[in-house]
Amino acid sequence: MQQFDLKALLEKIRKEKPLVHNITNYVVMNFTANTLLAMGASPVMAHAPEEVEEMAGLARSLVINIGTLSAPWIDSMVLAGLKANSLGVPVIFDPVGSGATGLRTRTSRMIVDSMKISVVRGNASEVLSLASGGTVTKGVDSVHSVEDAAQAAKEIARQINSVVAITGKVDLITDGEKVIRCRNGHEMLGCITGTGCAATATIAAFGAVSNDCMASAAAGLAFFGLAGEIAAERAASPGSFAASLIDALYEITPEQLQSRALLD
Amino acid sequence: MQQFDLKALLEKIRKEKPLVHNITNYVVMNFTANTLLAMGASPVMAHAPEEVEEMAGLARSLVINIGTLSAPWIDSMVLAGLKANSLGVPVIFDPVGSGATGLRTRTSRMIVDSMKISVVRGNASEVLSLASGGTVTKGVDSVHSVEDAAQAAKEIARQINSVVAITGKVDLITDGEKVIRCRNGHEMLGCITGTGCAATATIAAFGAVSNDCMASAAAGLAFFGLAGEIAAERAASPGSFAASLIDALYEITPEQLQSRALLD
Amino acid sequence: MQQFDLKALLEKIRKEKPLVHNITNYVVMNFTANTLLAMGASPVMAHAPEEVEEMAGLARSLVINIGTLSAPWIDSMVLAGLKANSLGVPVIFDPVGSGATGLRTRTSRMIVDSMKISVVRGNASEVLSLASGGTVTKGVDSVHSVEDAAQAAKEIARQINSVVAITGKVDLITDGEKVIRCRNGHEMLGCITGTGCAATATIAAFGAVSNDCMASAAAGLAFFGLAGEIAAERAASPGSFAASLIDALYEITPEQLQSRALLD
Repeated sequence: MQQFDLKALLEKIRKEKPLVHNITNYVVMNFTANTLLAMGASPVMAHAPEEVEEMAGLARSLVINIGTLSAPWIDSMVLAGLKANSLGVPVIFDPVGSGATGLRTRTSRMIVDSMKISVVRGNASEVLSLASGGTVTKGVDSVHSVEDAAQAAKEIARQINSVVAITGKVDLITDGEKVIRCRNGHEMLGCITGTGCAATATIAAFGAVSNDCMASAAAGLAFFGLAGEIAAERAASPGSFAASLIDALYEITPEQLQSRALLD
Repeated sequence: MQQFDLKALLEKIRKEKPLVHNITNYVVMNFTANTLLAMGASPVMAHAPEEVEEMAGLARSLVINIGTLSAPWIDSMVLAGLKANSLGVPVIFDPVGSGATGLRTRTSRMIVDSMKISVVRGNASEVLSLASGGTVTKGVDSVHSVEDAAQAAKEIARQINSVVAITGKVDLITDGEKVIRCRNGHEMLGCITGTGCAATATIAAFGAVSNDCMASAAAGLAFFGLAGEIAAERAASPGSFAASLIDALYEITPEQLQSRALLD
Repeated sequence: MQQFDLKALLEKIRKEKPLVHNITNYVVMNFTANTLLAMGASPVMAHAPEEVEEMAGLARSLVINIGTLSAPWIDSMVLAGLKANSLGVPVIFDPVGSGATGLRTRTSRMIVDSMKISVVRGNASEVLSLASGGTVTKGVDSVHSVEDAAQAAKEIARQINSVVAITGKVDLITDGEKVIRCRNGHEMLGCITGTGCAATATIAAFGAVSNDCMASAAAGLAFFGLAGEIAAERAASPGSFAASLIDALYEITPEQLQSRALLD
């Protein structure tokens, strides 16, 4: 079921070096910028309400990530997101920690309600927390299998009218109808900080060169997961793994991505 | 005098993966998160006043670090610290730069006065700046020997009712009565940024699995210093040393920690 | 035309470990601090309006970098810059993204108008955006050659009464009269984030030990570019290149800098 031309998408990123505007958290800003640069995109970080609309207008995709959220940044996220919507710039949303605190859950729901999100990427509990009260059949605690998660993800995707990507041992990507599974990845990715956030930024880089949100999410997760696999072949501990991961993002060729992506 | 069961403490971190809530500075957020992940703990960074109490309530220890202090963050530090106190969650404090500027000195003293701190970790001048005016016999400038520093540290520990850890060539840990010296470490740790802050976070990880603050401080400093020693065996320059340090934090076994800790 | 005693300047940094105060962006704080530490200087990051004047007064040079600008930080930049001016502490300015958004362009012009800047470092479009309306003969779009850029740089340097360093394939350094070219560097420096900002910090480290702004800018860019060359001999991909770059900043001897600097 490898229906996407992943090779062409990665070639397009490498050739066009699209600008990706990130409103993201302090912890991962450097790693995210290096992820985007290594894969061939052009990152910019800007969060001031005075300039986020202008910056979003210069960019070809926008990442909103709530990992170190505070009130002034929420205003900027909404300003940038609405501007991106008005210009057709895709918005990729990472609801870090949604479900863990009231601020994050409320803000995440407000964001998915107030703007058009192209792709949401999070772990299962983050994504499931986006459901409006009680309307997801199975709560977080009852999602015991990939199949349960797939049903819940489809329901959320329909509710918020966005492609939903739940990352875990197997990644699930759905627009509410179709479900794609991505089997790339490596457990070492969980041993360094910011890999989820960087995967989100990777989706945004693909979103900058594709109008197909399912393709962008699938390509981003396959590409980032493959980089994790390659890095794990070279490094067994997280400090050297982090450097090898950035190396791999730079080295993977379009042909390699096409042939090693595990999407079904 | 190796009276602590360091092996059991590190095993507990690796098994339970305790959540450590960090309100820390921008410079070291990424490195601190990677330090905690590598050693087996689960880091979270959150600083908004709207959520720090909730996050502190989910965590098993709290780090307060004033390295890039500003007024809005001070409020959050106090909110989180008092909540942690009310729940019995240990608070580990790193008074970065206290003594260097009025803002940092005033804020550090306010923090140690307004909440129960389990462990303070800093260099000699930072820790000595916490003394209320004139009441430490020997000022910073007159602390010429490890023995002088030990006397001053004991006096501060009694004043602020906290375990005090002064890191330097030899680390001193005291509750105001007993004094433990930690001789692990390597001078290369001074060649990269954030190693003091990461040592503080390491103490917080041990604090999350132990009620004995002297044990947590000693274990954290021995463990982090040992990682520095191992990294220095592999890397002679700071860029590769930083990666090797994170690798070592991941690789050190509970048995190695027990046998190579230099505590007396 | 290698008229500067680069050897003596680097020896001075290594011996005196001057404190460099950075008001810089979130993305590069860690990398900048590690750059300064590796080369032998002492970095401090502080941005609160309550302490920036005090910190600038403790430092031997000040970096102002607008990479993740927001309104509260602008006030601090001005406070710190004016204090540095009053004490004769050199101010090194990095107008990241000036020309890209109104906020950044306005703020950059305000900064160069309201304080004495010793060295501005940016790429061509950033530096050219500092010109007051219409008074630079050739606009950004018409700067097609290094010679065009040199003329424009000289004009800007006279307008803002500062040494101007435009980095690119060949770096240009001018005080409005003389022009120095630096040919050190490697294209891999463009594959990781924060190398421009780190080059600016490197100039600030040299500025901390020299009163000759042309020398500081030339030494900083030659040193940082040389580190890039050495790193590229060891690493072909950006993750390992970043570590090798920090290694090289630590390893380059004063003699090597003197002999391998490509200044004309």
